[in-house]
Amino acid sequence: MPALKKESETALLRRTTKYQPPGSWRTWLIGRPLRTADAPHQTIGKAVGLAVFASDALSSTAYATDEILFVLAAAGTAAFVYALPISLAIVALLAIVTLSYEQTIHAYPGGGGAYIVARDNLGEAPSQIAGAALLVDYILTVAVSVASGVAQMSSAFPFLFNHRVLLAVAMVLMMMVINLRGVRESGAILAIPSYFFLGIILLTVGSGALRYLMGDLGIVENPPHLEKEPHLQSVALFLILHAFSNGTTALTGIEAISNGVTAFKEPRSRNAGITMIWMSVILGILFFSITFLTGKIGAIPSETETIISQLARTAYGGRGLLYLATIGGTTLILIMAANTSFAGFPRLSALLAEDGFLPRQLTYRGSRLVYSRGIVALALVASGLIVLFGASVNTLIPLYAIGVFVSFTLAQAGMAHRWWKVGRLRPGEEATERGSTLRYEPRWALKMAINGFGACCTAVVTLVFAVTKFHEGAWIVMFLIPLLTLVFFAIHYHYRDLAARLSLERYGAPGRVTRQRVILPLSGVHRGTLAALRYARTLSDDITAVHIGMDQAEIDSLRRKWESWGDGVRLVVLDSPYRLLLEPLLGYIEEIAAQRQPNEIITIIVPQFVPRRWWHNFLHTQTAMWLRLMLLFKPGIVITDVPYQIE
Amino acid sequence: MPALKKESETALLRRTTKYQPPGSWRTWLIGRPLRTADAPHQTIGKAVGLAVFASDALSSTAYATDEILFVLAAAGTAAFVYALPISLAIVALLAIVTLSYEQTIHAYPGGGGAYIVARDNLGEAPSQIAGAALLVDYILTVAVSVASGVAQMSSAFPFLFNHRVLLAVAMVLMMMVINLRGVRESGAILAIPSYFFLGIILLTVGSGALRYLMGDLGIVENPPHLEKEPHLQSVALFLILHAFSNGTTALTGIEAISNGVTAFKEPRSRNAGITMIWMSVILGILFFSITFLTGKIGAIPSETETIISQLARTAYGGRGLLYLATIGGTTLILIMAANTSFAGFPRLSALLAEDGFLPRQLTYRGSRLVYSRGIVALALVASGLIVLFGASVNTLIPLYAIGVFVSFTLAQAGMAHRWWKVGRLRPGEEATERGSTLRYEPRWALKMAINGFGACCTAVVTLVFAVTKFHEGAWIVMFLIPLLTLVFFAIHYHYRDLAARLSLERYGAPGRVTRQRVILPLSGVHRGTLAALRYARTLSDDITAVHIGMDQAEIDSLRRKWESWGDGVRLVVLDSPYRLLLEPLLGYIEEIAAQRQPNEIITIIVPQFVPRRWWHNFLHTQTAMWLRLMLLFKPGIVITDVPYQIE
Repeated sequence: MPALKKESETALLRRTTKYQPPGSWRTWLIGRPLRTADAPHQTIGKAVGLAVFASDALSSTAYATDEILFVLAAAGTAAFVYALPISLAIVALLAIVTLSYEQTIHAYPGGGGAYIVARDNLGEAPSQIAGAALLVDYILTVAVSVASGVAQMSSAFPFLFNHRVLLAVAMVLMMMVINLRGVRESGAILAIPSYFFLGIILLTVGSGALRYLMGDLGIVENPPHLEKEPHLQSVALFLILHAFSNGTTALTGIEAISNGVTAFKEPRSRNAGITMIWMSVILGILFFSITFLTGKIGAIPSETETIISQLARTAYGGRGLLYLATIGGTTLILIMAANTSFAGFPRLSALLAEDGFLPRQLTYRGSRLVYSRGIVALALVASGLIVLFGASVNTLIPLYAIGVFVSFTLAQAGMAHRWWKVGRLRPGEEATERGSTLRYEPRWALKMAINGFGACCTAVVTLVFAVTKFHEGAWIVMFLIPLLTLVFFAIHYHYRDLAARLSLERYGAPGRVTRQRVILPLSGVHRGTLAALRYARTLSDDITAVHIGMDQAEIDSLRRKWESWGDGVRLVVLDSPYRLLLEPLLGYIEEIAAQRQPNEIITIIVPQFVPRRWWHNFLHTQTAMWLRLMLLFKPGIVITDVPYQIE
Repeated sequence: MPALKKESETALLRRTTKYQPPGSWRTWLIGRPLRTADAPHQTIGKAVGLAVFASDALSSTAYATDEILFVLAAAGTAAFVYALPISLAIVALLAIVTLSYEQTIHAYPGGGGAYIVARDNLGEAPSQIAGAALLVDYILTVAVSVASGVAQMSSAFPFLFNHRVLLAVAMVLMMMVINLRGVRESGAILAIPSYFFLGIILLTVGSGALRYLMGDLGIVENPPHLEKEPHLQSVALFLILHAFSNGTTALTGIEAISNGVTAFKEPRSRNAGITMIWMSVILGILFFSITFLTGKIGAIPSETETIISQLARTAYGGRGLLYLATIGGTTLILIMAANTSFAGFPRLSALLAEDGFLPRQLTYRGSRLVYSRGIVALALVASGLIVLFGASVNTLIPLYAIGVFVSFTLAQAGMAHRWWKVGRLRPGEEATERGSTLRYEPRWALKMAINGFGACCTAVVTLVFAVTKFHEGAWIVMFLIPLLTLVFFAIHYHYRDLAARLSLERYGAPGRVTRQRVILPLSGVHRGTLAALRYARTLSDDITAVHIGMDQAEIDSLRRKWESWGDGVRLVVLDSPYRLLLEPLLGYIEEIAAQRQPNEIITIIVPQFVPRRWWHNFLHTQTAMWLRLMLLFKPGIVITDVPYQIE
């Protein structure tokens, strides 16, 4: 046994590795690796903030009206008149939710998504439900936005319609690569498409409105055919509610600013709040005007031509340059909307992983300082959805927005509870929670009422969703969110349990190892075996070489060789009448292990030769690998590989 | 360092393991494991021998005539008259090959397949070509025989036609399971279907012949439609040769007895030789009569009804019991024929593996004493072929029989060379080769002429095959056989090279290890880490714990814990600015390894905690696994896993 050196102090060295990742195809695709210290810290103003955060919300105007009409079409085109009152109701809901979220922004200046608000105010289970709901909806945002973007493009260029799945998947993969490179979310570049869309869509709606007022708007020329045969049913309440559910997709994305408050310039809560109100006003006006004009021109919902396309070519009197600009702008904003999910999904999943509800690997920031694994996961799942649903917006919509409204409800309920807690504080008193600081606020009761009312409204809408869209596919999401929540808790339980079992608290250090027994399995006597024997000698005197014998001639030859090369180490030959290799060896090791003393350790030394080419491994039974896998589960046994490189 | 015990003698212990494999689903499927000592040794007589070995050869009468007619049909039904002279030529070829092989049986009483004959007389390359050709043809025998068996069944029960691929694959898998159980090849059980087929087919042919002689045979009622539109081309030589090529599939399987001489009772060469001549006579008569009667009844080749079916219902005047017995008997013999491949393929591949031309794993006999891996490989590849070719005999045939004729040619050429060597011996002199013993033989020149003529004939037929069936698919096999031969040699080179590099000849034993340096990578300080540290202390005083630091807070916490638990061992923290884990660690280890002295060894101790459920592994980065994979290639480094089981 080596003598022990007792030191009173532990030497600590710190070194910076000079390792510079080499260039490869990955460098070419996503750019050279960035140092952790290179992480950017940049804030943005209101104008750029609007451009960055509004794309998700504004882009929903590209399909919300279509989706209302698709439902109403079941009762014939006459039912289209109901679209206008429905959109008014949606705008009212928008106002309520905006007011609610504006309060959240001020309460959580450090960023307060539904996950954090629910975690701090409602507890673990609701926050995990919110997390699951949001993750599901991030995925759907990518699928729906990209599918709608492709639908816009194929409205202008019908030959694209047959390739829409391919086109959509290609777009998702392109976005994946761009996000793996790590796009700076801030920056004027991203503002250009948003403002371009805003300009062109306002021009389109404005021209339409002007021509309507002047009385020469007319109706859509050659509208697409109504795809579903109307049942000529009476317009029941269910149908209206169903159309309303579909239309509320217009609200998706308005929560984005509340997640990204930290990106704004100081005073950030104020700037973010104002930006959010601007955004909601623009969204409300746009959505209402589009629905209004759609009714006037008699547009027909269709998989082959979007409402925006029908509106633009009617407003501009043909498929001219302005028409193409409208389609282009709409496609761009939809892609930008999908892109916001590529920022949100990885960040949220990293947050969940940090809290121990998702695999820890998701917190790892890749070579470009982004959560690469989350980005790749999102792209893969969204592409899968697109393929599964044939890139049809109309088929994806029933799954969409439920997650968003679940998270709206939880966030507002959490806020209401927060105000109640604020009301319990004395004036001037402060209380710190994980995500924010509570300060006394005299008007807490009013604010609680606003958030409470918001929560009730969105809860009712969620219920309406569940009922009206259940059979169309909403059941998938309603099944998925609780399932994911359960998975999150199973993961959490594992991490907590593991930490407890590895913890050093109340841990009595085990005694010193005083005896080493070494077992050296042999398949033959060769240079690799001798290298292992040489190593074994450094560990202990108590070495047993073990050979599993199947063939007498082989055993005899091995014995002869061992006598001259085995350095006097004892050899045990185990007969294996059933020609099994691992089982008799494991049986023998177990027998030895059963007689183990507390301070004794058994080391299995596995000679492993390393062939020069990877495919050579197929030419050898990977006994070492299997042996290791099976021995890992036996306590008190250490496995040592002595590699012998074939040169 | 432990003191060294010098012993003059090596202790050798021998133990029989009591390990009895436990029952499992495999036991249920393929039966309880057998001991090596349980291997059966049983010999058979001529009558059973005929039944066992003739199925492959005789079964080809079930499709050989069809395949001749399929080709001739290209020139219209009038060309069918050429079938009779073609079949006469094939019977003549059969006689030549039989004569040739009869001599092989006497020369190789220990079993002399083409592989062994070529190996002993022509050298390595021709023997590997023969091996590749035979392996390819074993696979095709399974595919063609099973496909033809299914075609017989669907002739009687047409509704089966649409499920033929599924049916054929199910049959192959069933045969795989039966063969994994290890059917005794000998035994009267196997004789029953063979003799049943022989009886019923002779009755069918006899009835047909009798009715023809009495003039009331008539022609096929409702014959199937001719599937290909005839081109009304003149009957060119090419077409005749093509039809001949297709017809020679009748000869496949006649070599079976020469491989299995050892199975016969003594005097085994004589018994095997006589059996082979019987078999050829029966085959010749059957094939000729079927072709003859086919012409008389005006049968039409078709994918939906076989010639045997048309002949049987014409001979018996309808689809009665005797008709069904004929179909049943034919199907049975075809399945038996496929079954012979399940015996031959694994045995030949084990032979090649023993010689080091295929992966050694193929020599492993499974729990039922059969070469399980070869059986499974054959079933998988044959099933793949069946699916690929839609279980159509007519599509598979162009690939078939080329391998057999290549091996015929090589075997007969080898035999001719062997007689030449015999001619060089003095009377009474003997010479021993790997597979047989050469003895002087006065009539060596005549025997050499017979084998030489056989070789020439089969070589010419092989050429005719290659030319006439090239564009139909023969090119696949003509490409595959050389490719496989190359792969065999690549494998052989690897094994030979490896043996040389591991060999202890002219090997100077390396010096003793005098110094151990231990590196202990740490991700955190917990019970698992401490177990690894405890083990490391038994190896050396020179221990360095290494932590890859990415986060300052984490580094500080680790340092504090290490100061109280690290037992004074020095800790090196490597900064990783690019957030990489393995690369900086590997860089550090390489640096240490570069300073290694000749008798120093570096041990990397990897603490590895073993979670309780396998899926928990997805929740942890498998650093230990990656580290091992990357370190395996660095000389002078030993990797030790210290598992810590979470209970």
